[in-house]
Amino acid sequence: MKGIAILGSTGSIGQQTLDVVRMFPNEFRVVGLAGWTNLSLLQQQLDEFHPKLASCQDMAENLHALRLGNCSPASLEEVACHGDVDLVVMAISGSPCLLPTIRAMQAGKTVALASKEAMVMAGPIIAKMVADGAKLLPVDSEPSAIWQCLQGESKAISRIILTASGGAFRDRPVDDLPNVTPKEALKHPTWSMGKKITIDSATLMNKALEVIESHWMFGAPWEKIEVVLHPQSIVHSMVEFCDGSVKAQLGVPDMRLPIQYALFYPQRVANAALQRLDVAGLGALAFKPLDVTRYPCFSVAMEAARAGGTYLAALCAADDVAVNLFLEGRIQFTGIAGLVQRVLDRHVTGDGESLNDILEAEAWARRTALEAAAAPVPHSIKERR
Amino acid sequence: MKGIAILGSTGSIGQQTLDVVRMFPNEFRVVGLAGWTNLSLLQQQLDEFHPKLASCQDMAENLHALRLGNCSPASLEEVACHGDVDLVVMAISGSPCLLPTIRAMQAGKTVALASKEAMVMAGPIIAKMVADGAKLLPVDSEPSAIWQCLQGESKAISRIILTASGGAFRDRPVDDLPNVTPKEALKHPTWSMGKKITIDSATLMNKALEVIESHWMFGAPWEKIEVVLHPQSIVHSMVEFCDGSVKAQLGVPDMRLPIQYALFYPQRVANAALQRLDVAGLGALAFKPLDVTRYPCFSVAMEAARAGGTYLAALCAADDVAVNLFLEGRIQFTGIAGLVQRVLDRHVTGDGESLNDILEAEAWARRTALEAAAAPVPHSIKERR
Repeated sequence: MKGIAILGSTGSIGQQTLDVVRMFPNEFRVVGLAGWTNLSLLQQQLDEFHPKLASCQDMAENLHALRLGNCSPASLEEVACHGDVDLVVMAISGSPCLLPTIRAMQAGKTVALASKEAMVMAGPIIAKMVADGAKLLPVDSEPSAIWQCLQGESKAISRIILTASGGAFRDRPVDDLPNVTPKEALKHPTWSMGKKITIDSATLMNKALEVIESHWMFGAPWEKIEVVLHPQSIVHSMVEFCDGSVKAQLGVPDMRLPIQYALFYPQRVANAALQRLDVAGLGALAFKPLDVTRYPCFSVAMEAARAGGTYLAALCAADDVAVNLFLEGRIQFTGIAGLVQRVLDRHVTGDGESLNDILEAEAWARRTALEAAAAPVPHSIKERR
Repeated sequence: MKGIAILGSTGSIGQQTLDVVRMFPNEFRVVGLAGWTNLSLLQQQLDEFHPKLASCQDMAENLHALRLGNCSPASLEEVACHGDVDLVVMAISGSPCLLPTIRAMQAGKTVALASKEAMVMAGPIIAKMVADGAKLLPVDSEPSAIWQCLQGESKAISRIILTASGGAFRDRPVDDLPNVTPKEALKHPTWSMGKKITIDSATLMNKALEVIESHWMFGAPWEKIEVVLHPQSIVHSMVEFCDGSVKAQLGVPDMRLPIQYALFYPQRVANAALQRLDVAGLGALAFKPLDVTRYPCFSVAMEAARAGGTYLAALCAADDVAVNLFLEGRIQFTGIAGLVQRVLDRHVTGDGESLNDILEAEAWARRTALEAAAAPVPHSIKERR
């Protein structure tokens, strides 16, 4: 049995991972679970899966609220690095995923990474660890698709084609975007996901983060990564090889499929509970160019990506703050890109790319984003937005 | 340098193979060329590639018409089995491909098979040879797509999805089909190919032959092979794995791409001369169920496939005769399925599945088809058609 730890077990990916685990009771043993604030769901998970270790926000304070039984309280790193853990599903939203990801890889664990922020913030560090033998598997549907397409192929990649649904407002007139509500933005057209990633899908920040993740995970130069709008989210991504042949991975939009692929890799295992793709019933699959003017966050993020250094840590933190402010009704949807841009404009990247620099830049950008949101927006930037 | 022989060098696949060879003058040496009746083109090819061996129809009679120089006349088997040949591109239309394919595999050559009739007529024999170590590579775009999708995957196939353009008359009212002309039938909507295969595409006989080829080549049970209409011929085929994940291979409809893949396998080699797929410019890719009532040849062929034995040799021969009669204006387009059915109805399959039985059944079916075409069609069969 494979020992697994799930960091972010009460989130969307965490719950769906446990769903897959539930379908294969003889294959996996849940060694550790880390939730965050949803203590009642965490309690249910502890009661069902009886892990050895559990973690949550403000552990000491929240201990009294949980019936731990034989389960020991632990930090995120301790859950990820426990001796019985073979594979860590890293599904923590945002920057807190970074340190446990690095620590788990250092401890020799296979990390199934749903938290793309780790790769975005510390791409060069993680890519070097992987080159040196650390085991990292993608979980998100697009990088999983690329990874599946690359099986059995040499690295003769000429282009990675990431598909994007276009998010909640893909058909909304651009002039209406300042007035859209969080409730509307949370209605993703094809995927059911957590709040942060759903807003990031509406701004296309999520796709930019996937471009960055793919750059580091698959060693593809920026100019060889293309984003194509594909509203149906059936083709999860494609790879063009040097001879012009293109491979695509398709499936119903169900995260349990790429999660299961990562959990069982390199085996594929039959699962009758997952819906099959009815190819003959697909009708038309649409593909069209990305209109970047509709999605300013995408360009802001790609500029940070090309700048490199700690710009990417600042990007993740600023976006996290901006999305939260939008969800709290404190800034407009169209204010997200502007706020992120203002933070990046003020950022001075560190000399090195050490973990310390990255974490400092993250904290700085978080503070700066909150300050910038509280300050009046300069006229010039208003225009820019 | 890889020594190659091309059987069917003056046909569509043969010419395109030489086109690829021309693009990589340092990779391949043309050891043997076999044309059939197009002697002037064969002469050009001999003058350009200087093979050691050449073959054509009625060699003795045609020798005086060819300037062979240092090239020796040879039989198809001799061309395929010459000691300097590493890879044989088998691109002879129809049943004459069978014996040279078997002989080349027996001689330890890698056979890149465009002539699916060999696999259709002698599937069990060839599959056994491959299981025992013979090297057979697909060239046709659909089986090549399946093969590409299977790279790096274990045999956990749950479904093979062959795409079909639907041929020249996919949008023609069924009632008009008795009156279509050979000229109209030869206008394939997406591929430029030889005459026989273009008519087979219009009747969907070609897709049935691909189902049969895939059955033997990839070991997929009949019920796990599905045909889906895809008018654009961009997705060349797909494979669904046991976990529900689907992989597809895509590309512009250019046979040089799968030919090059087979020639260089297992390497992929960059080729700037081949057009790239513009994914963002694809617009809509359509997929819909196959309407078998429009394509009676498909059902006739699948019935023969399930019956097995020498029915498949009879099928290939009867179809070859029927297509020729249609091209000569001697039977209607809608008469092809009926004529093939009448031959199969009279066929008694041999006990064994020896090469001899297969060749005898082929010759019998060829005679019987010609006789049946000359005889008045019985009333009951008219109705059935």
